[in-house]
Order: sequence, then structure tokens, then C-alpha cells
Amino acid sequence: MKERFAELKTRLAEIHDLRRAQEILFWDQTVMMPPGGGSVRGHQVTTLDRIAHEKFISVEIGTLLDDLSDYEQQLDYGSDDASLIRTTRRDWVKASRVPAELAAEMTGAAAEGHDVWAKARAENDYELFRPVLERAVELKRRYVDCFDDYDEPYDVLLDDYEPGMKTVEVRQVFDDLKAELVPLIAEIGSVEGDDAFMEGPWPIDAQHAYSLKIIERFGYNPSFARLDLTVHPFAASSGTQDIRLTTRYLEDDVTSIFTAMHECGHGLYEHGVSPTLERTPLCHGVSSALHESQSRLWENIVGRSRHFWNHFYPSFREAFPEAVGDVDQERFFRAINRVKPSHIRVDADEATYNLHIILRFELEQEILAGAIDLKELPEVWNSRFEEYLGIPVPTDTLGVLQDVHWSGGGFGYFPTYSLGNIVSVQIWEKVLSEIPDLHDQFELGEFGQLHEWLQTRLYSLGRKFTPQETLERVVGGPIDAEPYVRYLKDKLGALAAA
Amino acid sequence: MKERFAELKTRLAEIHDLRRAQEILFWDQTVMMPPGGGSVRGHQVTTLDRIAHEKFISVEIGTLLDDLSDYEQQLDYGSDDASLIRTTRRDWVKASRVPAELAAEMTGAAAEGHDVWAKARAENDYELFRPVLERAVELKRRYVDCFDDYDEPYDVLLDDYEPGMKTVEVRQVFDDLKAELVPLIAEIGSVEGDDAFMEGPWPIDAQHAYSLKIIERFGYNPSFARLDLTVHPFAASSGTQDIRLTTRYLEDDVTSIFTAMHECGHGLYEHGVSPTLERTPLCHGVSSALHESQSRLWENIVGRSRHFWNHFYPSFREAFPEAVGDVDQERFFRAINRVKPSHIRVDADEATYNLHIILRFELEQEILAGAIDLKELPEVWNSRFEEYLGIPVPTDTLGVLQDVHWSGGGFGYFPTYSLGNIVSVQIWEKVLSEIPDLHDQFELGEFGQLHEWLQTRLYSLGRKFTPQETLERVVGGPIDAEPYVRYLKDKLGALAAA
Repeated sequence: MKERFAELKTRLAEIHDLRRAQEILFWDQTVMMPPGGGSVRGHQVTTLDRIAHEKFISVEIGTLLDDLSDYEQQLDYGSDDASLIRTTRRDWVKASRVPAELAAEMTGAAAEGHDVWAKARAENDYELFRPVLERAVELKRRYVDCFDDYDEPYDVLLDDYEPGMKTVEVRQVFDDLKAELVPLIAEIGSVEGDDAFMEGPWPIDAQHAYSLKIIERFGYNPSFARLDLTVHPFAASSGTQDIRLTTRYLEDDVTSIFTAMHECGHGLYEHGVSPTLERTPLCHGVSSALHESQSRLWENIVGRSRHFWNHFYPSFREAFPEAVGDVDQERFFRAINRVKPSHIRVDADEATYNLHIILRFELEQEILAGAIDLKELPEVWNSRFEEYLGIPVPTDTLGVLQDVHWSGGGFGYFPTYSLGNIVSVQIWEKVLSEIPDLHDQFELGEFGQLHEWLQTRLYSLGRKFTPQETLERVVGGPIDAEPYVRYLKDKLGALAAA
Repeated sequence: MKERFAELKTRLAEIHDLRRAQEILFWDQTVMMPPGGGSVRGHQVTTLDRIAHEKFISVEIGTLLDDLSDYEQQLDYGSDDASLIRTTRRDWVKASRVPAELAAEMTGAAAEGHDVWAKARAENDYELFRPVLERAVELKRRYVDCFDDYDEPYDVLLDDYEPGMKTVEVRQVFDDLKAELVPLIAEIGSVEGDDAFMEGPWPIDAQHAYSLKIIERFGYNPSFARLDLTVHPFAASSGTQDIRLTTRYLEDDVTSIFTAMHECGHGLYEHGVSPTLERTPLCHGVSSALHESQSRLWENIVGRSRHFWNHFYPSFREAFPEAVGDVDQERFFRAINRVKPSHIRVDADEATYNLHIILRFELEQEILAGAIDLKELPEVWNSRFEEYLGIPVPTDTLGVLQDVHWSGGGFGYFPTYSLGNIVSVQIWEKVLSEIPDLHDQFELGEFGQLHEWLQTRLYSLGRKFTPQETLERVVGGPIDAEPYVRYLKDKLGALAAA
């Protein structure tokens, strides 16, 4: 059995190498590649993807997993080996159900859809995009049809990003959240402030230097990570000791500081996976929501806190004398926590962001069910948006066309952003209960104990357990929106009232 | 047959994608990767290499090549399709003769040998390196034993870099060259000059800007290429429209200007391969020597010429006022063309460089034949070096340990450097005979017609023909040292005499 297990590990390591190579090729394409390289690179990534998929769904791996059932039962549930067999079996069963032709068709449609979407968004032309969306929906329905173990079709899509999570759970959590958020935002979203200084100028070099200054305190280190420029920031990695963060800088926008903290959160999670899981399929964060909980924890709970800025603001003011030389800390602090309904999800504040997500979550289910005629999607989007956020949508570019996800068939991803927000506060409350003086540490610019706690309790686990098991281990219970609502009310309510 | 051919192309494209992905992973590792990523990256590259090798030597490809023989005969010899079948068959026969275990052992030994070599060189400890060398030689002998179609064993090694070239031909060419060079260098290598200004300072930013200024005139364009920093400069590519050049900068050394021209030459060759050959095994320069002929042509024949500097020197002086503000053009020109025996091959001037190569070429054959006891290699190196170059070798770090090649089993590579020098002048004379006013164009900073000639006549061919056929097509004859010797005598003799 030891030999069979070693063979499984060897095969999985090879597949993992291909997957990671893909990730670096993607990073390279987005961050480094000369524009001429796009077409050939597309082929390279597709080839690696196909080979990895073929090798993974092979009969040999299925047989190995069968053969190793007894061995698995003899091991501790939480051991690396048992977790590898268990998680791989789950992945294998799911991947094996999708015919290669459908997988290839989805990949092809995503590649073709991207450029059409980009053009449609630029030209505010929903009708140009509609055929892409129709095809994506049709492919997703065929994808759902490959499975039979779901309560409702959307479960299948959600499971790709949040394994084991059910639509009904998300609906419950989001309904709770929406019921609290809509009136809260209607109330505090109307508080105005003099935020004109936020337009800068924020010199690019100073933004880069200050971003590094902050994330180095969080745990970023050039011995295992890089921070580069791109158009749509993301984090990627080749292994736990090779983390690639990306960000972007605009002269009139200091958002990059928070983007760096956000991507650093993703990066620290990948970096913190146990070295014993390197080159295995367990060597990743466990789910999109858990991942987002870490980016949001470092960005919002830490990076937009009073304690954080009590430490950093003096040096921040020195770094950006033209923008904030005469802006006191309280004014800056209110500006970066301003709640104000706006059209673009990625630019939304901490509170309204969730309503953008809930809107998409609801629409995705209705589209999948055929309850919305796609010809009328812009109208449905616009009226629902105004209902939740209180402002009208002037163009489709600022509305239904703004996100890339649907063009690539990425249905089921959106909810994980808000689930991440929710989980981030659950984890934060847990840390704080065990290390009550964290705020004092932040005031001193110290984040090492927080990082260590997260690394030990969460990051090191990688994909050993399901997301639910992982959350249970970290916070002692299931997902729950209540702490997050309380956090938002406490923080934002206080700011609005003051 | 059309279908069989399409299947061959599809399989080869997939393998080519894996190979190019490897190349970008290597570039990334050398240029971008955080140091922590090394161990995992090593596995990724090995995995891609193994999969590409397995897929290439598969029975399916062998059968396709057999089946396509008739189809090939019906096609023009010079057509893309016939060339693809013919060249692939040659590659396949060679690759299939090497057992997978030996290939893996060679790859492993190279990876292990590298670090031992680096340590041995740093510590001037040949005995530390000797076991690595012994193993490399033993593996090379086993590699040679896989073949039976050679005149002498060294042919097999040479063929890896210069397909079809025979040792006897190289020996003849090098003997001619040595007979001319040793006395020439003894004569002109003693001319002294006041080159102290060459120590700079040469500000790094100005070196980078000036390097780009020059290579953009040669044809470099950021739409299809990059120029980045590394320790040991090289050129790599992901396809014809994605070329990665690397260089390095030192405050006290302006060699980077010539390094950029050198790597640009390699890059323009890869960029110039016909777009119809993209994603096929023909999409590369045809051999090491032909490749080196292009880097050396742009670096030396163009970049160290009077005409070139007649155009560039005024702006060069403005770019580096501290180093050459009071150095006239003639003094600078003599300094960059100074012939002076020195110990390190990569720092050698245009003329003495070849003696470094000839030394290695002779030693490699004697080592392979067992004619040198490896315990005595340093003594053999040192006495032969002094015989050819006229100076003693003070340490093994400056002698037998200086090059990385042998640690990785790279026997057979060295001669292609000098063959490249030789070929570069053959090609240059041909261009000049067809475009007699090239020198006038250089005086105006114009290199477009030269680039176009090379692209049309050489670069576009890729690997369609053998190196010999390619050279025949470009210059109308076989390799010949005579033009190169004449070029060196004319240029360097004149400088020494003046």
C-alpha cells in the first residue's frame, strides 16, 4: 500500500507541476508578456490544461484511489495522507463526470467570450454581449446536467468555488445580510464628507514604496514573494515559497494601498500552507470564500482600522505630503471608510459591496432557471440595483456589462466574495478572543502574532479538510452572518453618527 | 494523408507548447522568481521536460512519420510540410535512441552538478569538481554508445548543437584559424593603450536607456520583446512574437551595450522565423553556430565597427559624460577593439576568444577519448592555455573551473561559439556584396535593410533545412574560416599598426 500511495503522490505531483506552470504562465501573460505573445500563449496554457486534465481523470488514478480505501481508513482522518486520498477522490469524482468535449468547449467559449465582452463593455453594447452570455448559460446547464447529487442546479456551480456549500445556505445568509444592510446603507450612505483630497496627487513611486512598507509588516518578504503591476490585480503562486502579488497605481487614487493589503492576504494564505503539502493538490487555500476571508481580513479589518492608522498615519502623511499634508487623521480615516452607493462593484465600499454581490447571486440563479429572458436582463439589473442601492444605473457599462465573470462562464463565483467578508469577521472575533491585545499590537505596527495565529490555525491546513470542516476547526462553528453585520454596524454606524 | 499530416502537426504543436512553456519557466526562474521558488520550479521544469520527451518519442509519432513518407516525397523539398516531416524524423530517430533512464540520469546529474561546480569555482577547488566531471564524462560516453552512425565519438556530441557537422570539419577549420591567430595575437596583443577610462563610472540607468536606444534601431520592439536583468545574460522566447532578452549592468563596465546587441541578434533570429512555422519544431534558429553568427554579427561586425560609432558616438558621449566626456572617438574605438590575452572566455576580445574555444574543443575530444587523466586536467589546461595565449593561469577559478558547461554535460557546445564567429563574416560578406552601401547606412544609424536581408534569407527559414543546407542557401557555400581570418587581420591589424 505504501507503494501504491507513493505512486498516487508521484502522479498527483506531476499534475500539480502542470497546474502551477499554468499559473505562472498566466501571471507572466498578465504581468510580463509582450503583447505579441498572446495567441501562442493561449495555446500553451490550453495544452497544459488539457494534459493535466487528461492525466487527472485517468483510469489509473481512479484505480489507485479505490485500492487505497483501506489504507485511508487505517490513517488518522486529519493526517496528510488520509486527507490527500479523501480530497483527491472528491476532485476526481467531480472532474470525471465532465466529458472532455464539454470541458474543451467551455474553455474555448471562455477564451472567445472574453474579447467580445471587453468590446461590448467598452461600447456599452449589451446586445453584442448577449450571444456570449446565452452560450455560457447553455454550457453551464449542460455542465449541471453532468451531475445528479444536488438539491438545486446552482449548487453545482457554487460547489466549483465553495466545495460542499449549498445554495440554500447562501440564500439564508444573504437574506439575513440584505435585511440588515439595505436600511443601514440607506441611513449611513447619505452622510457626506469633504473627501476631495482623495483625488491626490498620489505619486506612483510613493504608492509602491508605501504598499511594500505595509505588507512587509504583514509578513511579505522578497525571499518568497514579488509585487508587480497589472491591470486587474490578483495573486498567483508557483508554490508556497514563490508568491506573485499584483497591484496597480493611479495618480488620482490611493486604492492601491488597500489592493496591496488585499492581495497580500491571498499571498500569505498560499505561503502559509504546510510545506508537507507542497506539490500536492492540497497545496492551496481551501475555497474561494476562505481565501477572500483572508484578503478582506488584512485589507479591511486590519487595514481600515483606527489602530492600524494610529500607527501608520504619521509616516503616510510624510510619504504623501501634497495629498494629505494638511488632512488630519480623522478626516482621512472617515474618507477611507466612507459608505456611498456607487455603480462599480470593485470600487464599492466595505458595506455596499455586499449588495452588489447579492444582486448577482440572485440574478445568476434566475438566469440558470430560465426565469429571466436574457433580452431583458439589463432592465432587470437596473431596477433591482436601484431597489437595493438607491441609485439609478445610467449605462450598461456601469451595470450589467461591468464584470468579466459571466463572459468566461464563471457563474457561482460571485457569492464567495461576500461569504469571504462574513467569514473574515468570524475568524477575526476568534483571534481577538484568544489574543485580546491585538489592537495594541497594531498601534505599534506589529502584526506578527496575528499572522502566526492565522498561519497555524488556517493557512497551514491547505485543502486537507472541506471548507466547512476548516471553518469549524478555526472558529468552532458554521458560517454565520451575524458577527459581520454587528461589525459593520459598530464600525460604520459609529462613523456616521459621530 | 492530409489527415495524418494534420495529426502529426497537432501532436508536435502540443509538444512544442510544453517546450516553450519550459523556456518561459526557465526565463522566469532566472529573471523574476523569488529565491525561495527554486526547488519547486526544478520539479516543474523536469516534469514538463519528461512529458514532452515521452510524447515525442512515442510510437504514434514514429508511425505517423513512416506513414507520411510518400506524402513527403510528393512535396517540394523546401516546402514547410516536407521540411517538417524530414526534420522531425531526424529529431525523432535521434531522441528515440536514448533510453529514458539515461536521459533522466543526465538531467539529474546536470542539476546536481551545477551547485557543486559553483562551489568549486568559488573556492578554487578543482578536486571538489572532479567527481562531477568524471560522472559527466561517463554519462557522455554512454550517450555516445547509443549511436553507431558516427566517424568519431565527438561527432555525436557536436551533432546535438550543430546537426550534421563532423568533428573532422571543425578540426580543419580550427587548425586554419589557430595557425593564423596565434602569431597575429602575439603581434597585436602587445599593443598597449590608455584604456583607464573604460572603468567608468557608467551609470546603470544610462546603460539601460542606451542599450535600448541601440537595439531599437536594430529592430527590437516592445510589442514583441522585453529586455530584463539577470546574472548570466541569455535570450529566450515563447514564440516569434514573444522574445525575452536579458543583460546585466555594472557601474565600472560598459560591456552591457555589447551584450544587449549580442542578445538582440539572438532575439531577432527567433523573431524572424516564418509565422507559418509557429508552434512547430521548426520554429527556432537552425543550430548553435548559426545562432551565434547572428549575435556576433550584430555585436561585433556591426556594433564594434567604425561606421556604427561614427553615428552613435556623439550621443553616447552625451549619455556618459563622466566616463567619456573627454575621450575622443578614436580612443574609445580602439579601447572597445583592444586585443589582449586574458583568462576568462566570456570577457575575451573578438580575436583571443577563439583560442579559448579551440583549447576547449581539443580538451573535450581528449577527455572523451580518455587521453587525459582528469586528475591532471588543470595542468594540461594551464600549459596549453599559456602556449596559445601567452599568459600563465594563476588559479583554476580563472582556468579550468570558469565555465558552467561541463558541469551540465554540455560537451560539444563550445566549438559552436567560434563557428558562429566564422559564419558571421561569411554572411556579412554576402550581404555586403548585395548591399554595398551598408556602411553608409550605419553612418546614418540605419540598420533596417540589413535586418530585412537577414530576415528574408536566414531567419525566416527556421529549422526547415539542415545547418549546412541553410548556410549553402545564404552564402552559397560551406563553412570557411578564410573570410573571418581576413576580417580580423584587416580590422585588428590596422588598429595595431596605426
